Amino acid sequence: MLNLVFLLYNNNMEKKISDKVINRLTLYHCILFDYINKDIKFISSKQIAQLLHIDDSQVRKDISLLNNSGKCRVGYIVKELKTSIESNLGFKKTKKAFIIGAGNLGSALAKYDNFTSYGLNILGLFDNDKKKIGKIYNNKPVLDISKISHFTKGAGVEIAILTVPRESAQKTAEILIDANIKYIWNFTPAVLSVPDDIVVWNENLMGNFLQFTYNYDM
Amino acid sequence: MLNLVFLLYNNNMEKKISDKVINRLTLYHCILFDYINKDIKFISSKQIAQLLHIDDSQVRKDISLLNNSGKCRVGYIVKELKTSIESNLGFKKTKKAFIIGAGNLGSALAKYDNFTSYGLNILGLFDNDKKKIGKIYNNKPVLDISKISHFTKGAGVEIAILTVPRESAQKTAEILIDANIKYIWNFTPAVLSVPDDIVVWNENLMGNFLQFTYNYDM
Repeated sequence: MLNLVFLLYNNNMEKKISDKVINRLTLYHCILFDYINKDIKFISSKQIAQLLHIDDSQVRKDISLLNNSGKCRVGYIVKELKTSIESNLGFKKTKKAFIIGAGNLGSALAKYDNFTSYGLNILGLFDNDKKKIGKIYNNKPVLDISKISHFTKGAGVEIAILTVPRESAQKTAEILIDANIKYIWNFTPAVLSVPDDIVVWNENLMGNFLQFTYNYDM
Repeated sequence: MLNLVFLLYNNNMEKKISDKVINRLTLYHCILFDYINKDIKFISSKQIAQLLHIDDSQVRKDISLLNNSGKCRVGYIVKELKTSIESNLGFKKTKKAFIIGAGNLGSALAKYDNFTSYGLNILGLFDNDKKKIGKIYNNKPVLDISKISHFTKGAGVEIAILTVPRESAQKTAEILIDANIKYIWNFTPAVLSVPDDIVVWNENLMGNFLQFTYNYDM
């Protein structure tokens, strides 16, 4: 009984990590990856902070959200902190996805091996261009979009990474929704009109770029 | 004299637009682009809000920051609102840049014509691979990275879009800084160590993806 109460209590007290913190934690993770490659065992909040031009109290605060145990006199234990970020942010949960559009961006993303270490498992690409269907990018086949419904249902895929041209974006989104896709990571510059139960994540590269140039008055 | 006082006052009172608002405004801009293509003249805050699954009061608040005059009984005048977003966010200020790395992602970005409408003018790509140097992507030549300093200084380019492999990222950043680059839009999963006067914008695609999956508990 006490155990159950403790579990419930712990569950309710679970710290929700904000988007900004997740963004920074993934950058800390990149730094830790680099340290492991260089065979460096310890890292301080100051070293992380200096690389990102942020305050080291911010780094300590972010890491305190992780229940990370690998803290010692000389700083954090690199391997333990890396594992802690991975388990807190769900790197080990596999998230199956298809890339829609086997053009320049689609094939570039298919070839990006780094995705798998974050749990993103891209099973294949889809296109409507007969010249592209049948190609293989990085062991991932390009399949016919008219048959996508068979594959989403068969493989239980609910995430689509949309990289088609702007003018085909809406029409393609509708095909995806019919095929049981629930989450669309939208790399196109089109805003998609979708039902309420479909989640669209707009990558909005140009929005990011304009934030930078606006803030630096360029 | 009164005019001068008014100008100074106006300048100091200029509203600073936050990153989140810039992000949303660029999405509104995508919607307006689509409306113009469909020859629709007016748009309401509700129509914008529905497409983005946000509150229409948020849309009105964001647009109120623009000093947009194109408001009428039936909503906003599409063309005027579009122009207003463009002038407020600096779409018309040309920002010259080079892409570093002519691999999959670099060439995909080079072929992305949409950049120019946001004022991002990509003049060329750089690589160290002799097989890539001399190629042309979308009228942009691939040049030899060892000669970049000549081109940055000659063309006054201060922005580099970094798309090289993770393991070459730091070394390449140092070449860029020596060549007078001041702003690095970093698409690599490496955190760069740079002097304080150099600005790095980490695109951090996987950080964005993990925000989504974390928030939807995937």
